[in-house]
Amino acid sequence: MTSTIASEDELIASLREICATAAPENIILGIGDDAAVWRPSRSNLSVITTDALVEGVHFTLAGMSARDIGQRAFAANLSDIAAMGARPVLATIALGVNARSDAAWIVELYAGMADLARRSGCAIAGGDITRAPAITIAITVVGEVRPSNLKRRSGARPGDIVAVTQPLGASHAGLRLLTDRPELASDARFAGVVRAFRTPQPRLAEGRWFAASRSVHALMDSSDGLSTDLTRLCAVSGVGATIDAVPIDAEAAAVAALFGDDPERYALDGGEDFALIAVIAASAFGYLAGRFARHFGTGLYRVGTIETQPGIRRATGEPIAPAGWDHLAG
Amino acid sequence: MTSTIASEDELIASLREICATAAPENIILGIGDDAAVWRPSRSNLSVITTDALVEGVHFTLAGMSARDIGQRAFAANLSDIAAMGARPVLATIALGVNARSDAAWIVELYAGMADLARRSGCAIAGGDITRAPAITIAITVVGEVRPSNLKRRSGARPGDIVAVTQPLGASHAGLRLLTDRPELASDARFAGVVRAFRTPQPRLAEGRWFAASRSVHALMDSSDGLSTDLTRLCAVSGVGATIDAVPIDAEAAAVAALFGDDPERYALDGGEDFALIAVIAASAFGYLAGRFARHFGTGLYRVGTIETQPGIRRATGEPIAPAGWDHLAG
Repeated sequence: MTSTIASEDELIASLREICATAAPENIILGIGDDAAVWRPSRSNLSVITTDALVEGVHFTLAGMSARDIGQRAFAANLSDIAAMGARPVLATIALGVNARSDAAWIVELYAGMADLARRSGCAIAGGDITRAPAITIAITVVGEVRPSNLKRRSGARPGDIVAVTQPLGASHAGLRLLTDRPELASDARFAGVVRAFRTPQPRLAEGRWFAASRSVHALMDSSDGLSTDLTRLCAVSGVGATIDAVPIDAEAAAVAALFGDDPERYALDGGEDFALIAVIAASAFGYLAGRFARHFGTGLYRVGTIETQPGIRRATGEPIAPAGWDHLAG
Repeated sequence: MTSTIASEDELIASLREICATAAPENIILGIGDDAAVWRPSRSNLSVITTDALVEGVHFTLAGMSARDIGQRAFAANLSDIAAMGARPVLATIALGVNARSDAAWIVELYAGMADLARRSGCAIAGGDITRAPAITIAITVVGEVRPSNLKRRSGARPGDIVAVTQPLGASHAGLRLLTDRPELASDARFAGVVRAFRTPQPRLAEGRWFAASRSVHALMDSSDGLSTDLTRLCAVSGVGATIDAVPIDAEAAAVAALFGDDPERYALDGGEDFALIAVIAASAFGYLAGRFARHFGTGLYRVGTIETQPGIRRATGEPIAPAGWDHLAG
């Protein structure tokens, strides 16, 4: 590919080749017609989610390769599929590129998406590419789930345990480091948080594992920060929660110390960790946490308890405001 | 709603109400969870298409209400569903808004989309709203089609007749008028072309009607102009075509005369008419055209003939270049 942008038809032919490497068998028609076509599997429900990333709002080109940006955008959408207890089937991508986006950059972006798609068993089945003042990546993913396995946000009940799949704050710590101390980006001490920010991993296997358990009453992914997302989960469930432990990623705590920041704010408000928030019947929590640890080799982190009183608060009763990412704020 | 933008959660609650008016029964979970959920109907195939409209690239706010912009963006996607012979089931919307987009504007945009969705039997089941430097509307529509009714672009065979569902050029004429003689936008003589540009109608009923006929070998919607779209259809079918008649919208011809433009260029290259291009077995064309006219009360317009020689040309042999809309051009 040259460094100037190809015509739409030429570029699409290249992207089509990349995407063809991630095409499961139930895809009947991929990129190239008016629409893509697939055969939904019998007796499953279909799920769909869409999410857009905009340059200058959700990411900058500094410190991020095109491949990482593509992977990250795709991970955010797959994380929503994971949070339904579903498995991904196919995705479409609406890409806006500006005059500075050359064909090689766009191809790398797609390579990042296609790589994660392939590892996740997801096809990239369609798309649209257009000019835009800033790079805009709007991804839609379709998945499938057995009706009995579908997990909503709205099933939390008083007495349930709130747990997350990993310590939090790593992604925000990575962003802080890349923004304010970029020279430390390649420091081995911070490799984990940089990776968490650049190439987050959607918890698809964990989502399906939770989905198979009737003791998991609600499931959601933490994309906007635990304080915001747990507030939302509680609101639609008609309950509240007390948070009595905030698991903080160890490297994130080291980054916070470097800047004199409060590490708990990274974990509560940072967002984009793409952990799953699982709300689990108290009677089953110990058993499930043990099985989770054996199955995934990592702990299931207890965060707090669901209560009847609306809102979320600390064990002291002090309210926790949803201070995470508001996509329309300033 | 106030004139300043609400918080994301507040705004989404308003949009959710609007979208709830267009929710068919097979939608199990709409806006508000990590993903929307639906039950695909048995033994059908699912189809998916995505398309993004960007302010300053595909539309400007001048001469277009938020409602019209919403309707138009949604129509472009439904047109792709029509071109597969499918019926729409649900849509997701990734919306980027800038500081000048107030909540009332966003609500009107959604009202335009929801109005067309309702008339088309399509749910708006999910979305994402974010800041962006220009208004960006990325819509994904899922549809369904009986496997035997699925129409691809690639089925055209030498000898087939190429037809379109309406005279062309109206949308481009409307754009030309609104851009260069906006004072004529309310002139009754040009009401049709202004309407064609502002609120195009996807040919869903026509698409499903074609889909039921085995004599329709290929189907595509004309969104980028007949010269570009027919070139694409021929390329994937491994054929070419001679165009011997270009049906030109009468009002579009009047607008062209006003500006001293060649009306045939509006029809060939203008795009966004969202006509369907149907490729029909020659032996069945007369019969189908008669039935089409009786069923829809409008003609089926014969444009030309499929041939083995690649590319498209006039009856004189003069090549016709694909001069329509390239989304990445300058």
